[in-house]
Amino acid sequence: MAKQFDVVVIGAGPGGYIAAIRAAQLGQSVACIDAWSTADGKPAPGGTCTNVGCIPSKALLQSSEHYEQANHHFAEHGIEIKGVELKLDTLVGRKDTVVKQNNDGILYLFKKNKITFFHGTGSFVAHVDGGWSIKVSGTSDEDLVAKHVIVATGSSPRALPGLPFDETQVLSNDGALRIPAVPKKLGVIGAGVIGLELGSVWRRLGAEVTILEAMPEFLAVADQQVAKEAQKAFAKQGLAIQTSVKIGEVKSTAKSVTVPYTDASGAEQKLVVDRLIVSIGRVPNVSGLGVETVGLKLDERGFIAVDDDCKTNLPNVWAVGDVVRGPMLAHKAEEEGVAVAERIAGQHGHVNFGTIPSVIYTSPEIAWVGKNEQQLKTEGREYKAGSFPFMANGRARALGDTTGFVKILADAKTDEVLGVHIIGPQASELISEAVTIMEFRGAAEDIARICHAHPTLSEAMKEAALAVDKRTLNF
Amino acid sequence: MAKQFDVVVIGAGPGGYIAAIRAAQLGQSVACIDAWSTADGKPAPGGTCTNVGCIPSKALLQSSEHYEQANHHFAEHGIEIKGVELKLDTLVGRKDTVVKQNNDGILYLFKKNKITFFHGTGSFVAHVDGGWSIKVSGTSDEDLVAKHVIVATGSSPRALPGLPFDETQVLSNDGALRIPAVPKKLGVIGAGVIGLELGSVWRRLGAEVTILEAMPEFLAVADQQVAKEAQKAFAKQGLAIQTSVKIGEVKSTAKSVTVPYTDASGAEQKLVVDRLIVSIGRVPNVSGLGVETVGLKLDERGFIAVDDDCKTNLPNVWAVGDVVRGPMLAHKAEEEGVAVAERIAGQHGHVNFGTIPSVIYTSPEIAWVGKNEQQLKTEGREYKAGSFPFMANGRARALGDTTGFVKILADAKTDEVLGVHIIGPQASELISEAVTIMEFRGAAEDIARICHAHPTLSEAMKEAALAVDKRTLNF
Repeated sequence: MAKQFDVVVIGAGPGGYIAAIRAAQLGQSVACIDAWSTADGKPAPGGTCTNVGCIPSKALLQSSEHYEQANHHFAEHGIEIKGVELKLDTLVGRKDTVVKQNNDGILYLFKKNKITFFHGTGSFVAHVDGGWSIKVSGTSDEDLVAKHVIVATGSSPRALPGLPFDETQVLSNDGALRIPAVPKKLGVIGAGVIGLELGSVWRRLGAEVTILEAMPEFLAVADQQVAKEAQKAFAKQGLAIQTSVKIGEVKSTAKSVTVPYTDASGAEQKLVVDRLIVSIGRVPNVSGLGVETVGLKLDERGFIAVDDDCKTNLPNVWAVGDVVRGPMLAHKAEEEGVAVAERIAGQHGHVNFGTIPSVIYTSPEIAWVGKNEQQLKTEGREYKAGSFPFMANGRARALGDTTGFVKILADAKTDEVLGVHIIGPQASELISEAVTIMEFRGAAEDIARICHAHPTLSEAMKEAALAVDKRTLNF
Repeated sequence: MAKQFDVVVIGAGPGGYIAAIRAAQLGQSVACIDAWSTADGKPAPGGTCTNVGCIPSKALLQSSEHYEQANHHFAEHGIEIKGVELKLDTLVGRKDTVVKQNNDGILYLFKKNKITFFHGTGSFVAHVDGGWSIKVSGTSDEDLVAKHVIVATGSSPRALPGLPFDETQVLSNDGALRIPAVPKKLGVIGAGVIGLELGSVWRRLGAEVTILEAMPEFLAVADQQVAKEAQKAFAKQGLAIQTSVKIGEVKSTAKSVTVPYTDASGAEQKLVVDRLIVSIGRVPNVSGLGVETVGLKLDERGFIAVDDDCKTNLPNVWAVGDVVRGPMLAHKAEEEGVAVAERIAGQHGHVNFGTIPSVIYTSPEIAWVGKNEQQLKTEGREYKAGSFPFMANGRARALGDTTGFVKILADAKTDEVLGVHIIGPQASELISEAVTIMEFRGAAEDIARICHAHPTLSEAMKEAALAVDKRTLNF
């Protein structure tokens, strides 16, 4: 007989596992289905984020940053090192340990919250008495019936047409996290978040990295002043980035990958590399879900169609995270997951899509929330801008890391903060104050009048707010 | 003839130079007097903070942290180092460069804001027509007349009775920043911020450090749960800390310093060290200021007596920073300096003394704002507490730095945030979000409902807020 649940969540990535926990907290009987496995076939919940995304990339970024510091910056601190040797197995092994801690953490949370976990794939069978019939195919097959279904199946890397990922020569974010030896030459197609983060990791570890981007503007998604600063910093580090390129037919052999392309000037070029990372976007995971069987509606781009509340076209079927519209960010998925669980329980869950921060974990880090200058100009909104460089920040000087700035955009009349854009040390952490201000619809003057501890990088936020009123104290 | 100014600021530390800049921004003619000199006799504005406090200590903390990482933590990242050699001259020289950048930055700011700088000491002469007559004794002697005077003379380290600082064996925060060789054994009297930070620096660089504290409780100023976690972490690092000690008569020779003391159990002990840091508090700088000449009132502890608006007993004489009541913190001085400059210009400057953050830059860092549990209990206020350990935070795991937690205290009925206490990585930066929430008199639920970027340490703040309502998602 089918097992009955109030809520069945398909997918245990950040959207799914968090939705499951919140639903369980609110008294629902909950099951969560996820197919990710460890190398030895055990459950590995956490989705892309935990297994091949946010978490392992940050582990590698930290290790490779230490390596970079040891090789290039310790001397100025009076730390002289005779020889630095890289044990890539240990470095990657540490990353695997961090991932495992997170997998295990989620399994523990499922137990603690009395969530039934099924290791396998979940798919819709039919609308039945009592809700939706869901089939689990995996370690053991199961039939479930759910009053509510939350689809949180996430996304997968998009391959170049005719060039499937083999994860040895042609790498997605997955293979790029476990290259067995530092490649001499590494190519990256796509200068987005993933391309920049993983390109940075391998550049620090010794690879010669070339990034090819089709768009004419570098980091078009970011404020263009930030993008320019980033491009300058990356170039200085030795990341070769070319924009406006047109990629030809890539040829991959056992030994190398050849990328013919037309450069910005229209000249034919050829990039020959040992390995190639393709990071040109991600596609929603809807295959095998039984979309057609039950008539779950997709939008024109293949995402599950949902309204602002994450409701699909089917009764009591919800979808959250990468598989629906909006930025593909773990914390956006989490917010949606919590809100849906609360709606199912009769509460009024809410996601403020205007205050979801974006982060790129390069060095310097890049983070922003709200609107950038291009967007405000397009909207014709009158705004004031204030910037403060980390070069004039005492903590940044003491750290020896003074690249970048904080920029605050505020409404010309009301002074309400409309966007905050940070490039520099700890941008990922500094952005939380900006999100907080925007959630309270605070003004630039609010930030300017709040006491910030000295000496901290967060003082740059205060000074940028003062700059909006043209009265910086330290610049 | 005396030079006339609207505002004369005595002292160019964070309180003084910021007050001078803000006053100049508001259209006043401003002079600032400061006596700090570089080794070659040039002006070195910035006060204790820039010259022998916040800034140089953070530079040394960063360098010594790199050294610690290289010696003890790189192996786990797969970075094998053959030999690490410490060039203390270079390490301390880098600190001097950072200090010089900050000195020069302030001199540039004076120029930019058309503030007249006098290198020397300033003292009150008399109340005269047009304001206060102030004498500058320094590079050249000057007579000034000021409509308003802002006293920002700061504080100096308190010596043990009968044991003056010689800055070679017996060190204040000044000498402790420039010990010429790593001492084999280093003693520290006083386990406050300065003792802990500088003790940490030299411990990391190889000294065997013993800290003796007279108080029975370790870090009595902090939340006691934070203090316990800190003591555990410091002990693990090898910082020997003893509380409840009674210091006897210290004997200093050219070769060593002997500290006889009674330990917590009442037993007589003797600590023999190569050098001794005495960090038992600081005293306000009022000598040479002409306090008696003009009848400037001091309080019973020797600070310049001021009201909440930093007004002294004399008309148009103000005092800010370490020389007045309140915490001896650079950012508290800055806030007071800005507020006084605004009051002088007829504006309504305001300092919220309830939201001034405190930071200790050890590893783990410690930061807090608002009330701690002891204080709330003493006040008899009903509160809820929520904590979240960095051990359960994905970014902390990826960084390999999972010590500590975030704790939020909120009013039992209204949920208003009353205090936030952080021990762990980047606590100094994370605290700015907490200050912001408290300035808006936000609730714990506000933090819990604000989107925090993943994976960041700031997610621990959100989870601690969820913990206040007993509904953490990741623990």
